[in-house]
Amino acid sequence: MDTRTVPARLRIARLREVMATNHVDAVLVPSSDPHLSEYLPGRWQGREWFSGFTGSMGTLVVTIGEAALFADSRYWTQAETELQGSGIELVKIPTGAATHHLEWISAHVKPGQALAVDGQVLGLAAAQQLRATTERVGIRLLSNVDLLDAAWAERPGLPTATVYEHTGPQAPVGRPAKLALVREAMARHGATHHFVSTVDDIAWITNLRGADVAYNPVFLAHLLISHQGATLFVGAGKVGEPLAEALLADGITVADYAQAPAALRTLSAGARLLLDPKRVTLGLREAAPDGLTVIEAINPSTLMKARKTAAEAAFVRQAMEEDGAAMCAFYAWFEQALARGERITEITIDEKLTAERAKRPGFVGLSFSTIAGFNANGAMPHYRATAQSHATIEGDGLLLIDSGAQYTGGTTDITRVWPIGTPSAAQKRDYTLVLKGTMQLSRTRFPRGTLSPMLDALARAPLWAESLDYGHGTGHGVGYFLNVHEGPQSISKSVPDPSMAMEPGMITSIEPGLYRPGQWGVRIENLVLNVAVPGGEFGEFLEFETLTLCPIDTRCLDHALLRADEAEWLNRYHAMVRERLAPKLSGEALAWLMARTEPVVA
Amino acid sequence: MDTRTVPARLRIARLREVMATNHVDAVLVPSSDPHLSEYLPGRWQGREWFSGFTGSMGTLVVTIGEAALFADSRYWTQAETELQGSGIELVKIPTGAATHHLEWISAHVKPGQALAVDGQVLGLAAAQQLRATTERVGIRLLSNVDLLDAAWAERPGLPTATVYEHTGPQAPVGRPAKLALVREAMARHGATHHFVSTVDDIAWITNLRGADVAYNPVFLAHLLISHQGATLFVGAGKVGEPLAEALLADGITVADYAQAPAALRTLSAGARLLLDPKRVTLGLREAAPDGLTVIEAINPSTLMKARKTAAEAAFVRQAMEEDGAAMCAFYAWFEQALARGERITEITIDEKLTAERAKRPGFVGLSFSTIAGFNANGAMPHYRATAQSHATIEGDGLLLIDSGAQYTGGTTDITRVWPIGTPSAAQKRDYTLVLKGTMQLSRTRFPRGTLSPMLDALARAPLWAESLDYGHGTGHGVGYFLNVHEGPQSISKSVPDPSMAMEPGMITSIEPGLYRPGQWGVRIENLVLNVAVPGGEFGEFLEFETLTLCPIDTRCLDHALLRADEAEWLNRYHAMVRERLAPKLSGEALAWLMARTEPVVA
Repeated sequence: MDTRTVPARLRIARLREVMATNHVDAVLVPSSDPHLSEYLPGRWQGREWFSGFTGSMGTLVVTIGEAALFADSRYWTQAETELQGSGIELVKIPTGAATHHLEWISAHVKPGQALAVDGQVLGLAAAQQLRATTERVGIRLLSNVDLLDAAWAERPGLPTATVYEHTGPQAPVGRPAKLALVREAMARHGATHHFVSTVDDIAWITNLRGADVAYNPVFLAHLLISHQGATLFVGAGKVGEPLAEALLADGITVADYAQAPAALRTLSAGARLLLDPKRVTLGLREAAPDGLTVIEAINPSTLMKARKTAAEAAFVRQAMEEDGAAMCAFYAWFEQALARGERITEITIDEKLTAERAKRPGFVGLSFSTIAGFNANGAMPHYRATAQSHATIEGDGLLLIDSGAQYTGGTTDITRVWPIGTPSAAQKRDYTLVLKGTMQLSRTRFPRGTLSPMLDALARAPLWAESLDYGHGTGHGVGYFLNVHEGPQSISKSVPDPSMAMEPGMITSIEPGLYRPGQWGVRIENLVLNVAVPGGEFGEFLEFETLTLCPIDTRCLDHALLRADEAEWLNRYHAMVRERLAPKLSGEALAWLMARTEPVVA
Repeated sequence: MDTRTVPARLRIARLREVMATNHVDAVLVPSSDPHLSEYLPGRWQGREWFSGFTGSMGTLVVTIGEAALFADSRYWTQAETELQGSGIELVKIPTGAATHHLEWISAHVKPGQALAVDGQVLGLAAAQQLRATTERVGIRLLSNVDLLDAAWAERPGLPTATVYEHTGPQAPVGRPAKLALVREAMARHGATHHFVSTVDDIAWITNLRGADVAYNPVFLAHLLISHQGATLFVGAGKVGEPLAEALLADGITVADYAQAPAALRTLSAGARLLLDPKRVTLGLREAAPDGLTVIEAINPSTLMKARKTAAEAAFVRQAMEEDGAAMCAFYAWFEQALARGERITEITIDEKLTAERAKRPGFVGLSFSTIAGFNANGAMPHYRATAQSHATIEGDGLLLIDSGAQYTGGTTDITRVWPIGTPSAAQKRDYTLVLKGTMQLSRTRFPRGTLSPMLDALARAPLWAESLDYGHGTGHGVGYFLNVHEGPQSISKSVPDPSMAMEPGMITSIEPGLYRPGQWGVRIENLVLNVAVPGGEFGEFLEFETLTLCPIDTRCLDHALLRADEAEWLNRYHAMVRERLAPKLSGEALAWLMARTEPVVA
């Protein structure tokens, strides 16, 4: 979809026509779908279609006379460019803020006027906040209308990619065992039924995968589980006959995607339905009949899939070796090609790195869009090079590469920064301070159950000491051949809740950064596994096992800033990387690995 | 009040008689008063009276057949002893937990039965949780009855201590200026009235002090502020005629303490009343008429008083010099007396240390009950030596002294640990690890607005690294000649909220610890001031200025655990302590200071 072909101004005008026809005074267009996913199928990219703003997050509000787009600092530069001439005002909000559009609505929509939003894509928590605002102001809230269809002739249909099984030794826990675990949790909650809308939860419970959106190997579906059986609501034709039979053998009936609300509506009054209010939309919540008892709790599968089994962790270690080997092969080529004077751009990097990964066993696809940002482009944490706009790697500076892949035995996500030509003293200082943060958190031992946000300061402290900081979180949970961003844990400034407790088996990224707008950016990211420390009279403790295997550049180090114990950590890490990757490499790639894992002195 | 004279069993029996007469099936007795204060006047120590448990926190629930006391780990040993023979079950709850008694109530009180609680002492938030439980179970909640009076013939009356002014240069911001600041905040909230129940807020706004409870220089009162005037509800006879006239001149009318609910009841329907739901009781909240608009927000004065002015901070530095000088004089005597073979007990320490503080200019009283704990007694964070039970300082080990005072120019709180005889290697290791935590957090720079709980891990990390931890928070806010524990900031595992943002001028304790039950305890505590760091393109940063001035023992150090940068911090601190305290000392005390501030080598 190229949102540039029709100007946003005309699209908004078309939307206003439909609003007028429907006697609606304002429309709220969130960036969400019926599954509250991170990556939206084209059908639910209405915010992008109507505004022209292509960022992954943002909220659009359109009234008859005004329009505003709410985006956080990661997107301000991009949004200012993309909104030019659209007549849409950019409202700059703090990262993580989710209520500024409500204030705007209460100031710009009058009492008695009607505000429409598609309740099918509105999360319950967001709906409650919106309702509080509209009730306070006296705005009529219409949540069961979808005005976008009528104003968006080109709107894509539902995705149709085939659903397939995650099988073999890489899927060590079977579907029946996972369903049994979920039903045990349902029983603990006293629930007769459990409704799941989040596609990663459904993929995990069913051991199924799909390709309905980019990067996350998921498929659009809802799942209704009772103690007797389960129904998977999925687009017609996406589940083949043999798979449907295999599912039926495990007690899962396949039904049409559109039938999910009807199935909820027909639940008996005696049913006790377990629902995750953060992971279900208003539309589906309201489909449940009034008489029914709703038990609100986090989806049990969200907690379960966060804790990788020992067998899964072993496959992740293998995937990390493959991923690390691909990185070495790429970097060996990259440095040589650059030395030969070949013209290499940020686009070339993406292509070549992806090609190296694609050679490795178990590779399925990328886990997110590669970020290869040279100098100023590296200062944009969510940068993506395009055919129209990208940098050539030449001269002096820093090259940031954030990339990852899906393997049948795990999901990877790694960021490294490399010197091009001669990095400056200021660049080395920034690089070393960020690395100190990555190392400090990676080395931290902490009590089991520590709420993950409480660890955030440990990665920031070395930067804070120099009055520096970064605007994004320090780390996110990572799925197992699933979403590269998954909860519940989050090492960040998020408000902690009990679901964020650190437990053995969780995989999280550690990725502090530092961004000099218009100059350069640094981010050094590894994935780590929560591992139990034996013994201890002061309770159970966890440590991070660094899973990611790839040299961390030592040519960018400012040795004056490195303590002896930090150099020792780095040397131990490099010894492990060398030991694990060397058997998978030969020739130039092996030589590159050996050179880049040489010990340093503080 | 000696709770030992009548056994708790008889008191509970008397309460059950009153319950029966009143057709009440269960009574909830929280540890709180109408002002939700930390220190309760005797009148509201009903939980202690009926249970015999003397800890500062705990909740009692009594049914006709059962009784349970809910206390956290700090109090388990004590509660087990004190509840012996009472027939009251001890329910052990995690620190910070506040809902376990609700679960107990829902399991032990039947649908249709009546549960009584005195709404005059029940915080709004607690009341909402309680009501949710009783409604769910179908229990009748009676919150407008106080059964304690009838069952407690000896119940003390209201405290009667005289209210006095905090005057002179040590009160640099006048009452009218503070009222104006509060009224500005009221205007921002669109409030016509503001009702304050928290006694430290009232003391701050009015520049008045009292002595109604131990240690905190506050007096029982409520305060109703409008844009035109204010009414101080305070016990008859506590405010003398001249003071009442001075208050009237500043627009504050004195009324009887008991009239506060009536004043709320007579507010007009058009009033917009600003209330802090965490800082007002159910009884007073319900006194406000139904028609009135209630605006819920944190008391503006809570945020204001947390941020000490530059003039106040200067007086605190002076108070710290006086307090430090008293500590030196005490320790010089202590070490010499011990060397002379004098018998010194934990009680002697309290008496002598208090006497030294009492000699210093500006001293008003202690800011909390001195904790002097030798070896095993030091392992109890809330230990208090009594005439019946205390240790003599003899043999080898560690002596922990946590003490503080109220000066007209500030409030102090300091913990030090001293070697007695020859400390063991294990004791030195524990001591050094705790000190590393104190130093690591003390040295941290952090962005202004950082939510204080997010800093907690920085003090724990050196202990966590050895699978060690402590069960209490790392730091609490400290008042200015006011409560030694004050909010809103808290360096702890608390769930952060926006009111906990670190702002310049806040004073907080840093006090990590380590407790070996039955053996020894370590805690090293300083007070620190939030100070702005100039400049910075990444936003405003704050640093901690360590306010507390007293040597940190170096004989207990395990030098192998100390990094060079840590030794440097300690040496710089000791150089400052020496420079600031030496002019105030002479003779033995000066010699002690010089000896205890000698530089160390890592």
